[in-house]
Amino acid sequence: MLEANLDDQTGEGLGYVMQRLLDAGAYDVFFTPIQMKKNRPATQLTVLADPAAQEVMTTLILSETSTIGIRYQTWQRTVMKRHFKAAQTPYGPVQIKVATYGKISKMTPEYADCAQLAQRLHIPFKTVYQAAMSAATQLDEED
Amino acid sequence: MLEANLDDQTGEGLGYVMQRLLDAGAYDVFFTPIQMKKNRPATQLTVLADPAAQEVMTTLILSETSTIGIRYQTWQRTVMKRHFKAAQTPYGPVQIKVATYGKISKMTPEYADCAQLAQRLHIPFKTVYQAAMSAATQLDEED
Amino acid sequence: MLEANLDDQTGEGLGYVMQRLLDAGAYDVFFTPIQMKKNRPATQLTVLADPAAQEVMTTLILSETSTIGIRYQTWQRTVMKRHFKAAQTPYGPVQIKVATYGKISKMTPEYADCAQLAQRLHIPFKTVYQAAMSAATQLDEED
Amino acid sequence: MLEANLDDQTGEGLGYVMQRLLDAGAYDVFFTPIQMKKNRPATQLTVLADPAAQEVMTTLILSETSTIGIRYQTWQRTVMKRHFKAAQTPYGPVQIKVATYGKISKMTPEYADCAQLAQRLHIPFKTVYQAAMSAATQLDEED
Amino acid sequence: MLEANLDDQTGEGLGYVMQRLLDAGAYDVFFTPIQMKKNRPATQLTVLADPAAQEVMTTLILSETSTIGIRYQTWQRTVMKRHFKAAQTPYGPVQIKVATYGKISKMTPEYADCAQLAQRLHIPFKTVYQAAMSAATQLDEED
Amino acid sequence: MLEANLDDQTGEGLGYVMQRLLDAGAYDVFFTPIQMKKNRPATQLTVLADPAAQEVMTTLILSETSTIGIRYQTWQRTVMKRHFKAAQTPYGPVQIKVATYGKISKMTPEYADCAQLAQRLHIPFKTVYQAAMSAATQLDEED
Ligand code: NI
Ligand code: NI
Ligand code: NI
Ligand code: NI
Ligand code: NI
Ligand code: NI
Ligand code: NI
Ligand code: NI
Ligand code: NI
Ligand code: NI
Ligand code: NI
Ligand code: NI
Repeated sequence: MLEANLDDQTGEGLGYVMQRLLDAGAYDVFFTPIQMKKNRPATQLTVLADPAAQEVMTTLILSETSTIGIRYQTWQRTVMKRHFKAAQTPYGPVQIKVATYGKISKMTPEYADCAQLAQRLHIPFKTVYQAAMSAATQLDEED
Repeated sequence: MLEANLDDQTGEGLGYVMQRLLDAGAYDVFFTPIQMKKNRPATQLTVLADPAAQEVMTTLILSETSTIGIRYQTWQRTVMKRHFKAAQTPYGPVQIKVATYGKISKMTPEYADCAQLAQRLHIPFKTVYQAAMSAATQLDEED
Repeated sequence: MLEANLDDQTGEGLGYVMQRLLDAGAYDVFFTPIQMKKNRPATQLTVLADPAAQEVMTTLILSETSTIGIRYQTWQRTVMKRHFKAAQTPYGPVQIKVATYGKISKMTPEYADCAQLAQRLHIPFKTVYQAAMSAATQLDEED
Repeated sequence: MLEANLDDQTGEGLGYVMQRLLDAGAYDVFFTPIQMKKNRPATQLTVLADPAAQEVMTTLILSETSTIGIRYQTWQRTVMKRHFKAAQTPYGPVQIKVATYGKISKMTPEYADCAQLAQRLHIPFKTVYQAAMSAATQLDEED
Repeated sequence: MLEANLDDQTGEGLGYVMQRLLDAGAYDVFFTPIQMKKNRPATQLTVLADPAAQEVMTTLILSETSTIGIRYQTWQRTVMKRHFKAAQTPYGPVQIKVATYGKISKMTPEYADCAQLAQRLHIPFKTVYQAAMSAATQLDEED
Repeated sequence: MLEANLDDQTGEGLGYVMQRLLDAGAYDVFFTPIQMKKNRPATQLTVLADPAAQEVMTTLILSETSTIGIRYQTWQRTVMKRHFKAAQTPYGPVQIKVATYGKISKMTPEYADCAQLAQRLHIPFKTVYQAAMSAATQLDEED
């Protein structure tokens, strides 16, 4: 995990750097609103990335942002195993991400599939999402 | 109340404009963290000011920030009546703000007095604040 | 809508006043993190209430918090019509809130029902919630 | 201005609705983190739109989100006049937005132009942005 | 310390999981508003718990939330020693938490006691809290 | 890095402690808005300091705030090398911080210099800042 506090960067520039970091292979990038000295509203940038990518991410952050320092910390991670299955909804097929950890199993319809169907058919996103959830729970889980 | 959304302003510049607006007579100035399009963390600037000061505040915000638009809205206000009284603490005198509204009366030790005594005597701020509260509640309220 | 900015109130006290305002009949009460002058992290309290309740809410806020001023503004509201229907899930019955506005109709399982079943049966909240959603969409909507 | 508080909507769904509202012609859409009753972290959705678009925006929000109520308020706006001019940088041309209000004039390089040049030439965004600012201030302002 | 980022969970579901984690023995649970990719407002869940409880907390979070990954980090802690003493206020008895660390000693009235007296006697919470603080500072500290 | 969660401290008291920590030599101090149990809006205090200063910072936080516990974690840091150079602007001289890391080099006008010139000459902060950036990029970088 890499973190940097940014108080002399615009929001525009931050939206840009988020995309660059994701393109460069970061697992995840997010912003947290913080409050720094001298009444400055600021943004904490957090990057979750493979330790092997630390140098690439560091160079990118120092190049693209106004920060002159970055802090690092290694965290352990528990990540559920994932595979995909296809659900048929009245609106079209939606991939379902099935995540498992011991006895825990949970399903999440893929955002991109739901969004695409919703826009094409002019129906609410959550109608498609909900239909995908219902279809998924009725599928026989036998893989 | 004036509001503007700022996504291409640095935190440094925002700290500066807060001070300028207060110096120009705003009742209050505050920042709210917001999230704008294109993944931009941004800041909402809110200025509470006398309607007569609207033009001055507008000019100041448009001059000092990157925003090109400001929105306005008039709010009604209920403000408690205030007067001050002096409380004697073991650490020195502290002005107490007494605010009243109908049957409600409440007292608040002045921040600046407490902070000054705390720093001079090398004791915690809340020790002075608490002593001022205790002294204030024992004062005969007869004015 | 009533708003007040609170920079000399503790989080503990704010949790207390939220409950008091809801008990006194506020439609909704929420907090927004803000940043005030002199490097003070603060909280904006917002109360949505019937205009007829304004005096009660004002008195409660001035009594229970450290603020000496409250601002008011009337907003218009569009609120969907609501009625309830019962859905049978494998885990027990769950009330479904059906909200309608013109051609729009949407259903939301009642939080309290789902939470209670989940805790009694030692299953995840979202398992119950999802089952209620599936049952609700299969119900014939004929009322 | 339209506002709605959302405590039973996912972040995924909110990202979707922001895009839909912008596509439907909203001037601006933003999110503010809020804290609702029963320990619920929630999101306030704000939409700035032409009063004539209120019905369209209302229908979209009620269709796409879980809220059953929306509040409205009309705000006045001061908006600077804008025109564009082209600046030549060592990296290519960048449109500059020139905004004026009385004696106040300010220039902002277009985000999209800067981002595109930065990505094509593999240089930092702020290098292009800064070059555009320098070029713009040297242009004779005679239009 | 366990952390997870949640962008496909509702606020309702998050309020539920906070209570479940506290019931399961977490020292503390809190939410931080964050901003994730694709314009998603999201919530970071942080759980402070005994390392021995890590597996229980992990299972609970993976069962009850939509996240598929959790990150862990061990932090050192300095915690003040605590004991309780009773203070007599004009409104009834209030337990005072006395916390000590080297020469530092501080007292905090118990929230639950103050809240209960305030509600029973129909007086402001801070009136009871302040009375408890005054009573506590006058108690002879001799234990 | 030291962190503490504060739910029974006022914003006033937090502004005070930020200044005290900076005076005592902290590298950086910042606040993050968080949401704790029992509907309490709260503030996370983060202090970046030299490990040798840990005891001093701990004593200061425990003395000045209501927290009874502090958590610690050591982070690695990458910090760019810095030196200063003077830029001449039409408004007066401004120190430029030059930060370098490998091939990356970036310049930032000193906030205090820009703010002072802007206030003395009654011109916008960003006019001075921008002039300093333009002057700096034209300086021959040969030191
Ligand atoms: Ni700086
Ligand atoms: Ni499977
Ligand atoms: Ni912009
Ligand atoms: Ni008086
Ligand atoms: Ni105050
Ligand atoms: Ni019905
Ligand atoms: Ni709800
Ligand atoms: Ni022009
Ligand atoms: Ni997701
Ligand atoms: Ni004792
Ligand atoms: Ni507490
Ligand atoms: Ni140099």
